Amino acid sequence: MTDLRPHVSPGSVTLAGGGPGSAEMLTLAVARALEAADVVLHDRLISAEVLALAGPGALLVETGKEGFGPGMAQADICALMVAFARAGRNVLRLKSGDPAVFGRLDEELEALDVAAIDWRILPGITAASAAAAALGQSLTKRGRNGELRLITGHDVAGYAEQDWRALARPGAVAAIYMGKRAARYLQGRLLMHGADPATPVAIVENVSRDGQRVIAARLGSLVAGLGGVEGAAVLMLGLAPRAAEAALPELKEVLK
Amino acid sequence: MTDLRPHVSPGSVTLAGGGPGSAEMLTLAVARALEAADVVLHDRLISAEVLALAGPGALLVETGKEGFGPGMAQADICALMVAFARAGRNVLRLKSGDPAVFGRLDEELEALDVAAIDWRILPGITAASAAAAALGQSLTKRGRNGELRLITGHDVAGYAEQDWRALARPGAVAAIYMGKRAARYLQGRLLMHGADPATPVAIVENVSRDGQRVIAARLGSLVAGLGGVEGAAVLMLGLAPRAAEAALPELKEVLK
Repeated sequence: MTDLRPHVSPGSVTLAGGGPGSAEMLTLAVARALEAADVVLHDRLISAEVLALAGPGALLVETGKEGFGPGMAQADICALMVAFARAGRNVLRLKSGDPAVFGRLDEELEALDVAAIDWRILPGITAASAAAAALGQSLTKRGRNGELRLITGHDVAGYAEQDWRALARPGAVAAIYMGKRAARYLQGRLLMHGADPATPVAIVENVSRDGQRVIAARLGSLVAGLGGVEGAAVLMLGLAPRAAEAALPELKEVLK
Repeated sequence: MTDLRPHVSPGSVTLAGGGPGSAEMLTLAVARALEAADVVLHDRLISAEVLALAGPGALLVETGKEGFGPGMAQADICALMVAFARAGRNVLRLKSGDPAVFGRLDEELEALDVAAIDWRILPGITAASAAAAALGQSLTKRGRNGELRLITGHDVAGYAEQDWRALARPGAVAAIYMGKRAARYLQGRLLMHGADPATPVAIVENVSRDGQRVIAARLGSLVAGLGGVEGAAVLMLGLAPRAAEAALPELKEVLK
């Protein structure tokens, strides 16, 4: 378990984090796994520049799935992984971000265990880390928060229930994954539990990839702030972009 | 802000995540920044194999600091960064893990802003992601938790206060950074708030580096489980190692 480069025999599966989008944010281990893979089963959010690092002979299969959208069923993805591994292929299952964070990793590991197929996991940069870098902000800060929460805007049952009272407290910081379509719901729940409408919420669209955009909103104007957001976005509750604060005095006023 | 490789002029500072330890877990961007740096100001936990990627002419300065231990004062680290940048050096401030997670990033950014020195942030793999990979577990799992917390065992004021009631709930998952010395306190607080003593707590020592060790404990036996742990460790509340569960029937019993 300590070896990051175990003997990756044909017929095994590497479950890896493709990071937030930029190929520069892949780890060395994942970049090497991409070069070596016979088959790459990748999420829709894996960028073209990341896929370009796959070997020329690699078979690339998009498994779709994002937010509420359509995509290959989870059972089909698992069946494909197992089938390619049984055929002796070196399979890379490439998930966006970190596979352990809202990546349904457990379902795929269970399928591999049931099929008695060897696997290893290579972590990736999760959206919260890349979004914080884009904001120029720390996710934790003494005197503000000793805790960071990663939450999801929705789960299989619909909009996700959270500990709203705690999230509504001044100084709470949370990265909200898949929060775009749940924004009105999140906003309502937080305000209902006493959050200040002036709480900053930074929206980071297309984190680390082409078209990255940082929008400084407040909880009260969150839905309006998401108006023009087309790409995948992570909502950073309790954080404002540092660069915007410093560069624009009028924004600084707004964010006070 | 969208460009991951802005013109890094001499006299600027790159604040980067050195990841959990293994050089394989550096991102491509950080590996390149290491090669290009004139001066590397690094935390004590940055491993020798990571530092080996620095250019032959680079000046490596260890800034110390870990847990309750001694080290260079934060003000001194800031002063060094500023001084080297003002001298026209390409400075890399290399923090272990992700700089935005319990890395005091904000204090260093403020010092650079005050000194009007250009900076950029490159995220790194945080310990929670690497520890989850070592455990073979997902940090989020439908039907179990739609939220992941990253918390610290202690802060500048001493042991950190947390939302113990929420953390004590069945199914809660949290990665506890710098929790080794705070283990007895954490254990006490969680049990006092109704946590089941049988709650799994995985201890991952030396995450991703030589001597990585995964210890399956329970909340009730956490302090005993930490007995032989010498290296840096992250405590994974609510998670048990998958491999151990599958491989050892007797452990499977224990973890039920």
